[in-house]
Amino acid sequence: MIPRNPDFAQAVRASFDRQGAMSHLGTRLVRIEPGVCVLEQPFGPAVAQQQGLFHGGMIAAVADVAGGYAALSMAEAGQEALTVEYKINFLAPARGEILVATGQVVRAGRSLIITRIEVAVRAAGQEKPCATALQTIMPVAPFADRAPA
Amino acid sequence: MIPRNPDFAQAVRASFDRQGAMSHLGTRLVRIEPGVCVLEQPFGPAVAQQQGLFHGGMIAAVADVAGGYAALSMAEAGQEALTVEYKINFLAPARGEILVATGQVVRAGRSLIITRIEVAVRAAGQEKPCATALQTIMPVAPFADRAPA
Amino acid sequence: MIPRNPDFAQAVRASFDRQGAMSHLGTRLVRIEPGVCVLEQPFGPAVAQQQGLFHGGMIAAVADVAGGYAALSMAEAGQEALTVEYKINFLAPARGEILVATGQVVRAGRSLIITRIEVAVRAAGQEKPCATALQTIMPVAPFADRAPA
Amino acid sequence: MIPRNPDFAQAVRASFDRQGAMSHLGTRLVRIEPGVCVLEQPFGPAVAQQQGLFHGGMIAAVADVAGGYAALSMAEAGQEALTVEYKINFLAPARGEILVATGQVVRAGRSLIITRIEVAVRAAGQEKPCATALQTIMPVAPFADRAPA
Repeated sequence: MIPRNPDFAQAVRASFDRQGAMSHLGTRLVRIEPGVCVLEQPFGPAVAQQQGLFHGGMIAAVADVAGGYAALSMAEAGQEALTVEYKINFLAPARGEILVATGQVVRAGRSLIITRIEVAVRAAGQEKPCATALQTIMPVAPFADRAPA
Repeated sequence: MIPRNPDFAQAVRASFDRQGAMSHLGTRLVRIEPGVCVLEQPFGPAVAQQQGLFHGGMIAAVADVAGGYAALSMAEAGQEALTVEYKINFLAPARGEILVATGQVVRAGRSLIITRIEVAVRAAGQEKPCATALQTIMPVAPFADRAPA
Repeated sequence: MIPRNPDFAQAVRASFDRQGAMSHLGTRLVRIEPGVCVLEQPFGPAVAQQQGLFHGGMIAAVADVAGGYAALSMAEAGQEALTVEYKINFLAPARGEILVATGQVVRAGRSLIITRIEVAVRAAGQEKPCATALQTIMPVAPFADRAPA
Repeated sequence: MIPRNPDFAQAVRASFDRQGAMSHLGTRLVRIEPGVCVLEQPFGPAVAQQQGLFHGGMIAAVADVAGGYAALSMAEAGQEALTVEYKINFLAPARGEILVATGQVVRAGRSLIITRIEVAVRAAGQEKPCATALQTIMPVAPFADRAPA
């Protein structure tokens, strides 16, 4: 994967730092490479459901963001990554200390970028898959009040 | 739609009230009927992205919960609704005061319940569609540490 | 829904008639309106699985085409409708004489068109839902050797 | 992956041979292992669209079957694999001599099996990805007139 924007890592980090929802949840950007983004989400009340597991909605939100930044790493300088759609399958109850979401670009087109996201949960040093997703991203000009369509 | 559990509304409300993540976001359960659940989500920092719109991840989380409770209204007494998977398409930027997510059961089987969710955003008294989703729910015995599969 | 191409019905019919696979299966275009396309697929060996039901793959193929032409009715003159992705849920065994697939545009953007498709099976004069799908279409210039992305 | 049915390969081959639609298209089962199924589909009029590419609907049908048999290899003896739902992204125009669909089990539960399917097209000895899918399969007792839900 050859990035179109040589400063892709800086662009991703700058955008991530502006995401209020992510800083609110305590999500961490731990790896950004051309076509790959890894996020970690520590467990806590804001991402829990009633039985002490990670909440499905929060798993999906972190997966969506990991895929979006994997896509952004392959976009042109100055673009943003708009989620057109995604589909997520939950594989196992997500009980553990940290959620690890790995977004990977499957195809980087000019008008659409397709990504896959694998989510695992880390408990006592072991990682176990808990969700998998497939996502369509549209790279767009920033700050416009635009729809995904 | 004829509910299998005559106390379905009470079961849904009791489960919703136990959802820490929902009370954390300020989500409201405004309507529950056999096969239908409507949630409202007021705008605020916890559900915002950097440009003052509702965050896509939060839209998906509210949609997921609306579909899950629509499904739960058609489950048997004592069951919980486990999300197997869903797919969401974003239709327009979600700028407004309140998000309205309407979950509707499409087919209520014994082992799987299929739902559709429409999400609109209300601004200045007008509602505008912003997302649509299709979801597979598995009704299960509660409190078990079980996977969706 | 206001079509961008006043000759949308003719454009859809001309494209449909060029579809070798559809004429091979005996699929019929029975209705085309702005944002709506209805196809009918008679039962027969080419669309059957081993137990005498409509084959899931063929149900999905007809659904995909119904959604694609609903989208094409809202595209500009001279464009084609490329399927970016879709997701389909099967609701019931499809036993009957005719499959009826109704594609409807949910949002008609310039770069992407989102559609929903409902598939029913008609048996002894009664229609029963058997599948539902959600689809993303990209309107594109024709005859180019282009990818969806 | 440890199969529950020691005769899984025979079960898959017997089921595949009963599939009228597959023999009609000339689809070949080229590999079956625990959790993995590879199908090959030669190009021809029955799987073509108007521009000489593999038809999207046929790509999806072959993908669906590859995923279903990967799942069946992990089911119990005597079960069939019912497709609950799938989602497919098209990645590139499918021009070539042979379509190669590889289904892989992601999680093999007792009530649901989740699979991923990668589809490539082979042209002049080179394989190029053209579609990727995520699928939910329900293992069920055979020959019953049952719905996926």
